[in-house]
Amino acid sequence: MRIAVVGTGLIGGSLGLALVERGHDVVGYDRDRARLVRAKELGAVATIADDLADAAVGADLAFVALPVGAIPDVVAQLLGAGVPAVSDVGSVKGPIVAAVDALGTDASARFVGGHPMAGSEQDGIEGARADLFVGAAWVLTPSTATSETAYTTVRAVVRELQAEVVTVTPDDHDVLVSFVSHVPQLAASTLMDVAIARGAEHRALLRLAAGGFRDMTRIAASHPTIWVDILTSNRDAVLGALDAYLGGLQEARALVAAGDRDALASLLERARVARTNLPVGASAPTALVELRVPVPDRPGVIAEVATLAGRLGVNIAALDTADSVEGKGGVLVIVVAATGADAYEAALRELGYRTTRTELG
Amino acid sequence: MRIAVVGTGLIGGSLGLALVERGHDVVGYDRDRARLVRAKELGAVATIADDLADAAVGADLAFVALPVGAIPDVVAQLLGAGVPAVSDVGSVKGPIVAAVDALGTDASARFVGGHPMAGSEQDGIEGARADLFVGAAWVLTPSTATSETAYTTVRAVVRELQAEVVTVTPDDHDVLVSFVSHVPQLAASTLMDVAIARGAEHRALLRLAAGGFRDMTRIAASHPTIWVDILTSNRDAVLGALDAYLGGLQEARALVAAGDRDALASLLERARVARTNLPVGASAPTALVELRVPVPDRPGVIAEVATLAGRLGVNIAALDTADSVEGKGGVLVIVVAATGADAYEAALRELGYRTTRTELG
Repeated sequence: MRIAVVGTGLIGGSLGLALVERGHDVVGYDRDRARLVRAKELGAVATIADDLADAAVGADLAFVALPVGAIPDVVAQLLGAGVPAVSDVGSVKGPIVAAVDALGTDASARFVGGHPMAGSEQDGIEGARADLFVGAAWVLTPSTATSETAYTTVRAVVRELQAEVVTVTPDDHDVLVSFVSHVPQLAASTLMDVAIARGAEHRALLRLAAGGFRDMTRIAASHPTIWVDILTSNRDAVLGALDAYLGGLQEARALVAAGDRDALASLLERARVARTNLPVGASAPTALVELRVPVPDRPGVIAEVATLAGRLGVNIAALDTADSVEGKGGVLVIVVAATGADAYEAALRELGYRTTRTELG
Repeated sequence: MRIAVVGTGLIGGSLGLALVERGHDVVGYDRDRARLVRAKELGAVATIADDLADAAVGADLAFVALPVGAIPDVVAQLLGAGVPAVSDVGSVKGPIVAAVDALGTDASARFVGGHPMAGSEQDGIEGARADLFVGAAWVLTPSTATSETAYTTVRAVVRELQAEVVTVTPDDHDVLVSFVSHVPQLAASTLMDVAIARGAEHRALLRLAAGGFRDMTRIAASHPTIWVDILTSNRDAVLGALDAYLGGLQEARALVAAGDRDALASLLERARVARTNLPVGASAPTALVELRVPVPDRPGVIAEVATLAGRLGVNIAALDTADSVEGKGGVLVIVVAATGADAYEAALRELGYRTTRTELG
């Protein structure tokens, strides 16, 4: 497949390396020519494009790996140049999807918002790794305008990189990452900042920092400009998650102040259990169920069906279209883990879909 | 040297392994007989003691590696049995040192509070490692009652384990660890707890947790009972540090709410620089200065001289007593890094000490 990668920093570079490794024809573009040349030297890009239009020529798919603020314009240009499927890797999805949806259905049908939950405090092409996405969650956020074709194309390539696809609505994505990424970033930077402020009085302070403090503040070494972009783009969700965190800390403070040992133990134990059970990487192999769902020819079916699974925590192992006739709808073939199949099937039926079920064992 | 280790969990077991490796005769005691036997199997203990009194017989030094609440009684028994130098590894120092000081000067002269800043979320003897303390900071908190002999004995053994000794007052220790350890623990557990509470609504949430969230919440997997002890023992310092952290987060919240990109960038950049410069492990080799300081025969000299260095951030590379005549005072020989020598010498003179200085190159 010919795949354009626009932006060859850490994520774009890693994406390029992984795609080249899997035999794709990767054409790269970056406004920073030196970085682009370096990406080619490292094997993250097979061909260098002179500009965006050049990158779009003959591409079956394009990924835009730029800072959040720069994404909508570039996506619009690639869609305008006729690329059949375009995705991005921005850390905030609501504003980007809204901007693309405003381009009209012809363009927006070919866009699928995306966000690989992988990265590193080391930014830039020199930190790029072909295995960066292996076992990582990669969020896709189809909108009601997104076509089945674009969604299945992007989804198939992401799965090929051994990432675990989680499909949710753009707004749900923004709330979720505010809890697992944006507020943790602010919490780490603030913890570090408070410690250095105190360090001026107590010069021994930072020499005492053991492993726990190092772990907690590691992401404070991240690149500030990327984060200013993210935190301001996702303002409302970040404020909501930050208020939940502040509320939790105020409760913890009250327990310490009152010397309430039992309640403190409960809090710490709840957190211990949750942390110990935090899912690691891709799902274990499991029994699968195939659901065949006849779908009408109306926009939003993919967004509805796929994000419903994401909301229920049901992992879609495969999603394809069968018997589809242009303009007549068709049948979606969805393979999910057996554990979540009942809940998912019930929820689909509640929305008026008919389902046929086959246990794949 | 015959060294008693009381308590053979993660820290006591690691201490035992490291001491045995360096040729010391380690006698171990633990109320949990099965754990003690396991410690002997793993080589963390050469001899098993039947009780505390048995452990004390012939010991030149004893380390008490028990939870904070259990330390004062055991230290008192070991001092009562005549052990010439006793230290502990408790995470809170003020209440322990105060309890020992209340035993009277004969006993408390032989006690030096200690706290190795190393550990792991894996508790118990099975997590013990001989190299756990290599390059880690190990705080010593001599009180005004602590004798030079006890301090230099404990200090020499800790340095033999390749830990970096940081000497501060018990109260300063408790404030410092509230910033680099206790509040980070609460911050991590609360972040995890807030995320799972939200996870009930959004089952996709925890599958999205990437490396940063994993790093930040790693210590939330720690053993709750140890932490309840620590957080309640160090209540006032924890509340102070927690208020500083809450204040910092409120300021960060205001910046996000106002969309103040410049101020957000400053906060993130300050934290990035501080995190990048966080001292790692033991100090690099450096030019040294020897200061000889005649000291009077009065209690508190060691606490004053050593904690003054800790407060100034000056690393004491060696500290010994020369020409000491029982009951007549003597000369302290202190070796410090040349970079901090001027400030330290000036501070000593300000306190009325006379100093003689030799550059060791």
